[in-house]
Amino acid sequence: MAEGLLIVGEDVCAEVVSDADAFSAVEAVFGAMARGDAYNFPVIREAIGYADALYGFKSGFDKAGMTLGVKSGGYWPGNMDKGLTNHQSTIFLFDPDTGMLQALVGGNYLTAVRTAASSSVSIAHLARKEAKVLGMVGAGHQSTFQLRSAARQRDFEKVVAWNPHPEMLPRLGGVAEELGLAFEAVTQEELGAQADVIITITSAFEPLMMNDWIKPGTHIACMGTDTKGKQEVDPAILANATVFADEIAQSVTLGEAQHAIASGLISEDDITPIGAVINGDHPGRSSEDEVTLFDGTGVGLQDLAVASVAAREAEKHGKATRVAL
Amino acid sequence: MAEGLLIVGEDVCAEVVSDADAFSAVEAVFGAMARGDAYNFPVIREAIGYADALYGFKSGFDKAGMTLGVKSGGYWPGNMDKGLTNHQSTIFLFDPDTGMLQALVGGNYLTAVRTAASSSVSIAHLARKEAKVLGMVGAGHQSTFQLRSAARQRDFEKVVAWNPHPEMLPRLGGVAEELGLAFEAVTQEELGAQADVIITITSAFEPLMMNDWIKPGTHIACMGTDTKGKQEVDPAILANATVFADEIAQSVTLGEAQHAIASGLISEDDITPIGAVINGDHPGRSSEDEVTLFDGTGVGLQDLAVASVAAREAEKHGKATRVAL
Repeated sequence: MAEGLLIVGEDVCAEVVSDADAFSAVEAVFGAMARGDAYNFPVIREAIGYADALYGFKSGFDKAGMTLGVKSGGYWPGNMDKGLTNHQSTIFLFDPDTGMLQALVGGNYLTAVRTAASSSVSIAHLARKEAKVLGMVGAGHQSTFQLRSAARQRDFEKVVAWNPHPEMLPRLGGVAEELGLAFEAVTQEELGAQADVIITITSAFEPLMMNDWIKPGTHIACMGTDTKGKQEVDPAILANATVFADEIAQSVTLGEAQHAIASGLISEDDITPIGAVINGDHPGRSSEDEVTLFDGTGVGLQDLAVASVAAREAEKHGKATRVAL
Repeated sequence: MAEGLLIVGEDVCAEVVSDADAFSAVEAVFGAMARGDAYNFPVIREAIGYADALYGFKSGFDKAGMTLGVKSGGYWPGNMDKGLTNHQSTIFLFDPDTGMLQALVGGNYLTAVRTAASSSVSIAHLARKEAKVLGMVGAGHQSTFQLRSAARQRDFEKVVAWNPHPEMLPRLGGVAEELGLAFEAVTQEELGAQADVIITITSAFEPLMMNDWIKPGTHIACMGTDTKGKQEVDPAILANATVFADEIAQSVTLGEAQHAIASGLISEDDITPIGAVINGDHPGRSSEDEVTLFDGTGVGLQDLAVASVAAREAEKHGKATRVAL
């Protein structure tokens, strides 16, 4: 490893990777996946039987972006008591031409922005152009990233929000205010009645939004369901909507679509990779009344894509450390 | 990552991890695996469709040794023309208490010594005490590591060796000479007739040693078969031998035992984890005439075990680099 290893810490990632950078990187890799130029490897996810930790790896190769690597990490529920983040992740990039380790990039901030970029890419390509009201289901740490990034995609005027724990809503309201958007805490029904675009970003195991509550023309990005058993919306919404996903294989097994698939409401063939819309191979939304739904399950290639931006920008601005190996 | 990341390069690994260190680490982790205190996660192995590369990950958690991590890397056949090693691997260790990245350790030398330690552990626990002749089937780069480590396990007097390309044998002969052992290039039949212990370390896809050629009481360590389709010995040898393995799940699917299993000569129940012998839960060899066979498939926990030694010793001797993250 003659040139050495590039190290890009968490703080530097936050400095050099903007929402717009993450958007471009994630959009490009979704397009590459749909063209068959990029693919994710099987995901490893293990309950290790110690410290209640979940640990694993997401990895893949993007031949178009020439990005090869892995995000490792997991969830350590006891970390907060030690003054650490419960989620811990690090992204490792390798040179596709030689297999040599190129860069080690902090993965916590990047996971947040790549997840936000994913719903934003779906909004950019699927929401009605004149969408004015953004509905947020969920008000945890990640929801603020989703909101900031989504706000860039349309001329939103207002945010309506609901969270199972209402005391968490003011933080999200603060972000809306900062973005110059009106903010209203509402019931779930009221959220459906007002919102043109809905982002769900919770850890729910039951439907939080019912089909009857949704307006025609709504775009819904379901971002919370990444495990068998999790669920955020009524499966009937998927039956009525045109359904898109980051990766169909994950969508039908552990994404939001798992429930509509299991109950036979939709089949795998009813789901379109968002990359096909990005590439112009699918028209996306076909009418102003159509409900569109994006199942964002989260794939390793998103992590690698934003880490690749972080490594490039950190090096360009002299903010990366180089270490000989 | 307050304390920062420990970086241990290839050169340092070779300085601080001896054959004896690797032996102890691999013996301990095989024992932990058999007790259920350590387990390997599913292996990722991908032909990435670029540069003819094979890339993947081996990972696991050893609760006894408190070692959590992953070895990433692969095989880039074009590297040699660029003056690089075709095999590229790096080992990443994480703190099992927090999930934070602890150490990054060069994996090329360590892969060689942990593979050598594996056959040595089997020789120490299974070969006859008075074994005098060591047979080497295979004379590639890895064979020299196997020979050096094996030579420490018994009072060998002589090495007999065979390789499909005889012109590679002198290098192995040089190592034998260095170790004070007589060396003879022989036919396969002659190797079986003379050897008390045999190590196979090739990339063969067909049996190189037949059952009729093996003496009673021989111990055979099959170290080359790590993929579906590969094969080094006659399946009848496994039918006649008491069979041991590093990990039974790998042994029956991609190890040397795959062929005897597929043809119904033995069943999974006929294979004993070597860790059971290490732990004293299985007697190992039961007579001087018994043929014992060890199927060494190579598991991620071996890599993590030796990397953990490398990180500890490198830090102790001031040879590791610490980087803030």
